[in-house]
Amino acid sequence: PDDWSDLDKRAVDTARVLAADAVQKVGNGHPGTAMSLAPLAYTLFQKVMVHDPADPDWTGRDRFVLSAGHSSLTLYIQLYLAGFGLELDDLKALRTWGSLTPGHPEVHHTKGVEITTGPLGQGLASSVGMAMAARRERGLWDPEAAAGNSPFDHFIYVIASDGDIEEGVTSEASSIAGRQQLGNLIVFYDHNQISIEDDTNIALSEDVAARYEAYGWHVQKVEGGENVSGILDAIEAAKAVTDKPSFIQLHTVIGFPAPTKMNTGKAHGAALGAEEIVGIKNILGFDPERTFQVDDTVIKHTRLALDRGQAAKAAWQGKFDAWAAANPANKALFDRMVARDLPEGWLDSLPSWPVDPKGIATRAASGAVLTAIGPVLPELWGGSADLAESNLTTIKGSDSFGPVAAATSEWNANPYGRTLHFGIREHAMGAILSGIALHGPTRPYGGTFLQFSDYMRGAVRLAAVMGAPAVYVWTHDSIGLGEDGPTHQPVEHLAALRAIPGLAILRPADANETAFGWQAVLEKQSVWNTGPVGIALSRQAVPTLAGTSAEGVAKGAYVLADAEGELQVIILSSGSEVQIALAARESLQAEGIGTRVVSVPCLDWFEAQDADYIESVLPKAVTARVSVEAAISQPWWRWIGSQGRPVSLEHYGASADAATLYEKFGITAEATVAAAKESL
Amino acid sequence: PDDWSDLDKRAVDTARVLAADAVQKVGNGHPGTAMSLAPLAYTLFQKVMVHDPADPDWTGRDRFVLSAGHSSLTLYIQLYLAGFGLELDDLKALRTWGSLTPGHPEVHHTKGVEITTGPLGQGLASSVGMAMAARRERGLWDPEAAAGNSPFDHFIYVIASDGDIEEGVTSEASSIAGRQQLGNLIVFYDHNQISIEDDTNIALSEDVAARYEAYGWHVQKVEGGENVSGILDAIEAAKAVTDKPSFIQLHTVIGFPAPTKMNTGKAHGAALGAEEIVGIKNILGFDPERTFQVDDTVIKHTRLALDRGQAAKAAWQGKFDAWAAANPANKALFDRMVARDLPEGWLDSLPSWPVDPKGIATRAASGAVLTAIGPVLPELWGGSADLAESNLTTIKGSDSFGPVAAATSEWNANPYGRTLHFGIREHAMGAILSGIALHGPTRPYGGTFLQFSDYMRGAVRLAAVMGAPAVYVWTHDSIGLGEDGPTHQPVEHLAALRAIPGLAILRPADANETAFGWQAVLEKQSVWNTGPVGIALSRQAVPTLAGTSAEGVAKGAYVLADAEGELQVIILSSGSEVQIALAARESLQAEGIGTRVVSVPCLDWFEAQDADYIESVLPKAVTARVSVEAAISQPWWRWIGSQGRPVSLEHYGASADAATLYEKFGITAEATVAAAKESL
Repeated sequence: PDDWSDLDKRAVDTARVLAADAVQKVGNGHPGTAMSLAPLAYTLFQKVMVHDPADPDWTGRDRFVLSAGHSSLTLYIQLYLAGFGLELDDLKALRTWGSLTPGHPEVHHTKGVEITTGPLGQGLASSVGMAMAARRERGLWDPEAAAGNSPFDHFIYVIASDGDIEEGVTSEASSIAGRQQLGNLIVFYDHNQISIEDDTNIALSEDVAARYEAYGWHVQKVEGGENVSGILDAIEAAKAVTDKPSFIQLHTVIGFPAPTKMNTGKAHGAALGAEEIVGIKNILGFDPERTFQVDDTVIKHTRLALDRGQAAKAAWQGKFDAWAAANPANKALFDRMVARDLPEGWLDSLPSWPVDPKGIATRAASGAVLTAIGPVLPELWGGSADLAESNLTTIKGSDSFGPVAAATSEWNANPYGRTLHFGIREHAMGAILSGIALHGPTRPYGGTFLQFSDYMRGAVRLAAVMGAPAVYVWTHDSIGLGEDGPTHQPVEHLAALRAIPGLAILRPADANETAFGWQAVLEKQSVWNTGPVGIALSRQAVPTLAGTSAEGVAKGAYVLADAEGELQVIILSSGSEVQIALAARESLQAEGIGTRVVSVPCLDWFEAQDADYIESVLPKAVTARVSVEAAISQPWWRWIGSQGRPVSLEHYGASADAATLYEKFGITAEATVAAAKESL
Repeated sequence: PDDWSDLDKRAVDTARVLAADAVQKVGNGHPGTAMSLAPLAYTLFQKVMVHDPADPDWTGRDRFVLSAGHSSLTLYIQLYLAGFGLELDDLKALRTWGSLTPGHPEVHHTKGVEITTGPLGQGLASSVGMAMAARRERGLWDPEAAAGNSPFDHFIYVIASDGDIEEGVTSEASSIAGRQQLGNLIVFYDHNQISIEDDTNIALSEDVAARYEAYGWHVQKVEGGENVSGILDAIEAAKAVTDKPSFIQLHTVIGFPAPTKMNTGKAHGAALGAEEIVGIKNILGFDPERTFQVDDTVIKHTRLALDRGQAAKAAWQGKFDAWAAANPANKALFDRMVARDLPEGWLDSLPSWPVDPKGIATRAASGAVLTAIGPVLPELWGGSADLAESNLTTIKGSDSFGPVAAATSEWNANPYGRTLHFGIREHAMGAILSGIALHGPTRPYGGTFLQFSDYMRGAVRLAAVMGAPAVYVWTHDSIGLGEDGPTHQPVEHLAALRAIPGLAILRPADANETAFGWQAVLEKQSVWNTGPVGIALSRQAVPTLAGTSAEGVAKGAYVLADAEGELQVIILSSGSEVQIALAARESLQAEGIGTRVVSVPCLDWFEAQDADYIESVLPKAVTARVSVEAAISQPWWRWIGSQGRPVSLEHYGASADAATLYEKFGITAEATVAAAKESL
């Protein structure tokens, strides 16, 4: 391009050399892609993206997602060159303890990193969520602005690799992006045809570009990683197509210009070796004796990004202030949302239920909560992976989020709508929820059966790693699901999810605990980066109980019904089995055995309480303990101890009605009474 | 078609009425697809597929996979009509306790069901594995036969729904199927444009047929579920294309001909209601007063499938016998494999290692085992999801499994090859391994990092439900992975996988335990339907220990180093942390504290031992216990008890070298000694 100077060329070559040097220094890492993508990354960071390195969280910025997270140097080097806060010493500390340059980019750890990436596919899938969030935020704050004229208009740029393209989560998310007509999403596919097992031909023969056309994307091809003009032209063309996400297939040579290792798997994930690096430096005109060589003129040139950023932000600020003046109510909403405050009096909307032995399903209570609080919490939005009627995730009266063309006889769609339709794509749902939660201050949720938390686990785990405050509405949370049988009945899922650090699993016992649970989730997530919560809800009706407590739910476990007389045995239980614990307590008390029932809606929150509170709920002296949960017992042994007995399900369910299954599998009050007596 | 009689038409309509009646009787289920797909299913079972209802396990049969498992009646009704063993009473018992007709089809439970389906996408993805297995089996037994002339040549037929098509696991598997040029795979896509949230337009706008063309499939479209001639023509055309899998998009109307509910979400997953069913029966000329009406002439007609099956099998038997006579060595191999016997003397090939404080990584030991036993166990085959060099899953000297066109400079490919290349598609790998294991007696394995077991969890769980004997080689099994950081370091995965009923997780302590572990896996899986095993292996070198034992490994846990003097404390440990337990024991013994180290390669196997053995390893009287595992402690509390102390990692890892991480996170001998003293 005309404004491409020798300094730009030198800066790109500097990026290549730094990538080779940094990996060589630590002895491991991924140099090849950082070298071949240096022109693209430099072009994006220096010539294309609107951002201010001095204020990486600026609302008006374009977002950058390095889906190919293993190539973290691609990003770190640009953050260094542009002045986001990384310095040469940080690059030298690559992949070492405590550094700002860990093996894969980590959000909230390194300034300028928008999202933690590395598990392949997640970045690209989450970028779809970011693009969706951008549209929803605009709809909340500035819906009337002409296209491209709002301070909330910007682009999401993504670099994806062959691995990203092969993963199913991106297939799912890319199909959704096509349906959603996300014109603000621009994805570069680094088509270098090399992965760890070398030439991708061994496992990949599909026509990726044709596949993206089938998804409804705007597809372009650019030949040559060095082809900056081609890259810039493609970006302009991508921006001009406002009703399709853009897919730009960039044909690069991995490791370019490493003399012997370029275009081989050896350039992918290992240090290149001293000799090879000498070769590179000779080719590029760098001193082969020096490492981490950055010319003063180069860094001075690239740090001009700070000046450009300041100017861009100032221009934006004018636009933003004008918007704020013209839209005071929306500005107030914006401020409240950015502060993650809940609106005053919002709790008045929260429904409650009278004690009722028949009761309702906790999924029904959750649906009622969402519809009740929806009007006062516009930041709350979500939907289901094609199970809206079962998950009860729809805020009644809301439009669906999507282009008008997505509307059906059942659903009214508009681009700023609120109800999300993920299709039968749980994994993408998980990644998209993370992207939404990372993009801005809306509060997203998504539903499926608890069983299919397995399908979205990669995304859920990464949300927990990032502290992304998504909410998963997981209904049909036990054999209580009934007739659909063992393939749909979760047995091990509560244990497997509780095992994930930073993820809280909430399993309310009844309608009121469900409302208190949503309250606790929204309040806890009012602190930025609190992390995700999964809510496990019953398909079947459960009694609405006496004694449930908002405070107790927020603490994770509490005494729901205490012993009469001397406390001899404690029954811990969650969800739909708390009624069984209470029935067992009746029997035990009738026999004169003082029995406490502890409702445990959230083991994760309970573990975080102080020792005094834990002792007050579970006195050490009381070793006779029983857990009751229609699931494997693994999470309970820590709490019931050597003397304890779990009432649990250590095998798969079966296809029959729920009542029969509880009876046949011995998840009953009788079994609980027997276990309590054994434990005494 | 010419040979389509009035009885055929009546039989198809009978299938529709039975579907409506069966769901109406139990009050829940999925009638709509079973009605609209009745012509397709009937055509496949009565006119197309080569099978013998009297011998559903016959080697020469075509396979049928109902990927849309929720439409189980589609299959059950055809099994009833064709005479596989289901009778009218079984259909009446749909979705009830103990019936042969559970909510979703279950393999090994109902004759004629080839695979458990229901979790969407798994069936189609596993069918790719079946098609691959058919080719590999042919390659082992009858490689020289002309195409279509071997007794081992047959087709895999699949019915998939919109849900299957939207799931990422099928995208992955379909791309692999294209690369593999699986001409023996014929997939019908029931394109009814209705899912649970009604019209799929709300979430699906892609051109699915174009997507499958991009994958390299042979794609056809057939208009109308009633278009039997079109279906038959498409199947003929599909069979004629031998170097591409076939995708036949069949445009149906869900619930046809239900007068008010057809073509709506209401026909999908709920009983249609008495009135609607009267309408259907009137339209189809059935007595609206009767339920489960099957005319004698109809069932007599459809049970002719038994005669055709017998004839087909007899014809095949001649071919098989001729092959057996001409290929005695291959016939012996076939017999041994079908019996799941291991060859005599195979253990002689198993490598062993001398005690060595430096040692090697267990992944390296696993790689050595595979290469050593590969030549004597031709049934063993596998590969990696693009991590062959890291997982060390390649049996050295083997060709890759794939068309010659898949070859690269690194890999020699042939259609009967042995090394699998899944690309970066872990979920499809899991489903494909299940398909291979269900198809026949080869023994498949697949590798990735333990971290990405999350991506394949849906398939792993279903393999465990089915008892499918796959082996997962999960390397880089802890923070010992090092520099790649928290996104790649498993912390909760051992707990989450041990939670899955029917899945065994093996984590060997050193090279010899790895060899003993492979031995135990292969021996245990010599019983059909034993279920899957995941092997967790270290990236880093671990010492080769004294005292390891094949018998101990097979029992899941054993005394590796006993206390000198009085037994006071027991340290339980697995994998790369056993060396830490042993070092702690040295210190404790030096202080006069009698310490036993129990190596626990497989908690799942240990739990299955009798009480005496468990008591001999973990005497109840010894309550001072410590667990050491660089992972969350959740699985250990049951074994260490109230007095026990876990040395564990309850949070995410970090990017640094392995030694630093163990030190910083306190997974050390010192911490273990301290925990032991606390526990005393």
